[in-house]
Amino acid sequence: MPPERPVLREFAAFLEELQASICEALSRADGAAQFGRDPWERPGGGGGLTRVLEEGALLEKAGVSFSLVSGRLSESFARRLPGEGQTFAAVGLSIVLHPKNPYVPTTHANFRYIVKGETAWFGGGADLTPFYLFEEDVSHFHRTLKAACDRYRPESYAAFKEACDRYFYLPHRQEGRGVGGIFFENMGGDPARELAFVKDCAQGFLPAWLPIAERRGGLPFGDRERAWQEERRGRYVEFNLLHDRGTVFGLETGGRTESILMSLPPRVRFPYAHESAAGSAEAQLVEVLRHPRSWV
Amino acid sequence: MPPERPVLREFAAFLEELQASICEALSRADGAAQFGRDPWERPGGGGGLTRVLEEGALLEKAGVSFSLVSGRLSESFARRLPGEGQTFAAVGLSIVLHPKNPYVPTTHANFRYIVKGETAWFGGGADLTPFYLFEEDVSHFHRTLKAACDRYRPESYAAFKEACDRYFYLPHRQEGRGVGGIFFENMGGDPARELAFVKDCAQGFLPAWLPIAERRGGLPFGDRERAWQEERRGRYVEFNLLHDRGTVFGLETGGRTESILMSLPPRVRFPYAHESAAGSAEAQLVEVLRHPRSWV
Repeated sequence: MPPERPVLREFAAFLEELQASICEALSRADGAAQFGRDPWERPGGGGGLTRVLEEGALLEKAGVSFSLVSGRLSESFARRLPGEGQTFAAVGLSIVLHPKNPYVPTTHANFRYIVKGETAWFGGGADLTPFYLFEEDVSHFHRTLKAACDRYRPESYAAFKEACDRYFYLPHRQEGRGVGGIFFENMGGDPARELAFVKDCAQGFLPAWLPIAERRGGLPFGDRERAWQEERRGRYVEFNLLHDRGTVFGLETGGRTESILMSLPPRVRFPYAHESAAGSAEAQLVEVLRHPRSWV
Repeated sequence: MPPERPVLREFAAFLEELQASICEALSRADGAAQFGRDPWERPGGGGGLTRVLEEGALLEKAGVSFSLVSGRLSESFARRLPGEGQTFAAVGLSIVLHPKNPYVPTTHANFRYIVKGETAWFGGGADLTPFYLFEEDVSHFHRTLKAACDRYRPESYAAFKEACDRYFYLPHRQEGRGVGGIFFENMGGDPARELAFVKDCAQGFLPAWLPIAERRGGLPFGDRERAWQEERRGRYVEFNLLHDRGTVFGLETGGRTESILMSLPPRVRFPYAHESAAGSAEAQLVEVLRHPRSWV
């Protein structure tokens, strides 16, 4: 029998509602395409609802996926997680937005609660992956998330920001995947307080990103910007398939492949050894990805 | 000091010459683009020559990369390989051809010799990844490689063919990456005999693929075929980054990133949960990828 906790039930209900409201707001902002609905069941227990929008005006591909799964972990996988035994339950919402316009940054967020045996913890975060750098946009994104962190615990933003830079890093490129955001896992404090914080963060995600999309979504762009966007999306693919724990573990533990890989960008290029001209806008972005900055 | 063996020297000289002749033949077949030359050195010892052609008429992206490296393996990596100690030398040629026309199959080959302590072994193979199925093309590819296997050891083709199907498999898709070919590693026999076999295979690679490219390279295609090609290339990316031991180990052990990732296709799509119409040419290909066949 899966572990049952009031926090799990409450957080699941919250995330389901949030999924609906985020999809509604994004469809409205897009104006040209709608989110589909793919409910699915997990053979081992539980299931989810994957919602994807493709070929929109603002969003070239967007996925907002809810899952509430439970059952028994394999022994080897159970050993990699905190808590005793192999019985688990997990609820989560994953969001990945790949905009069409290269001046609008890609963004990702995930909020989850995992119960294993008698142990339970929250994890998640939100991060930004621009193709061109608008410092005010990055500041806005970070400041919005920082506000939620500040309400939770004054010093938490700095720690979560650093954890985000550390996690979304491609060692073989010596680059960050993007300009960060926040990342937290297993904070180990009071569950009620943490639930309030994670809800606050999750509600802050759309206000952190949507104003940027609305500000930049109408900027004209050409082949150069498009090629650069598709090339940088290649790095996104490299990170997700080589390094992202959620992706690799999800596939290893028999998760629904299409829901896990909805994170991959719609169109991607992998040119050989491309280097941007020194001093170009493209090179400036790479410089920032190589040397994470403070944004608040 | 790196281990030194006459076989290593002889095979290295052979592969360097083969690299030059394959690049020359491919440039000639392409007619519109040439291979560049990127020599590189490995900080720990040795180096290589990576040759890439992009945006050709026949080849959208093609990489032919030679490397001869030596030095000391990390303890953890050394434990994963046969042989004693941490001293090693490795020579190899990697070939990945991504054609422009979706009726021409992508192909890959690798031929390598590794020395670790007192142990040394050959590995490699060649495989085919079509987007549309022409049975005679697949048969031609397999038969050409089988001829080299038959000259080496009568029963070897069947074993190497099965190893290829097993290796180039995406468990999360329940699909093969392509229609196979041959794959061998550490055959453990007489080095002189194995050297002759691997040379024979390597010389058979271009005759196995080029006639197919010449036969199909002029077929007209449209948006549908192009979209399908780019989608299937997405599976190629999934395999290489999630499963390919050469890619993952190469990146982990500090290989030259651009030479390792030259294997990634030039332009790729990742649509969400796309299913081809039942009975279509696209669905027929997937059927074969799910149920490997005999081709000789």
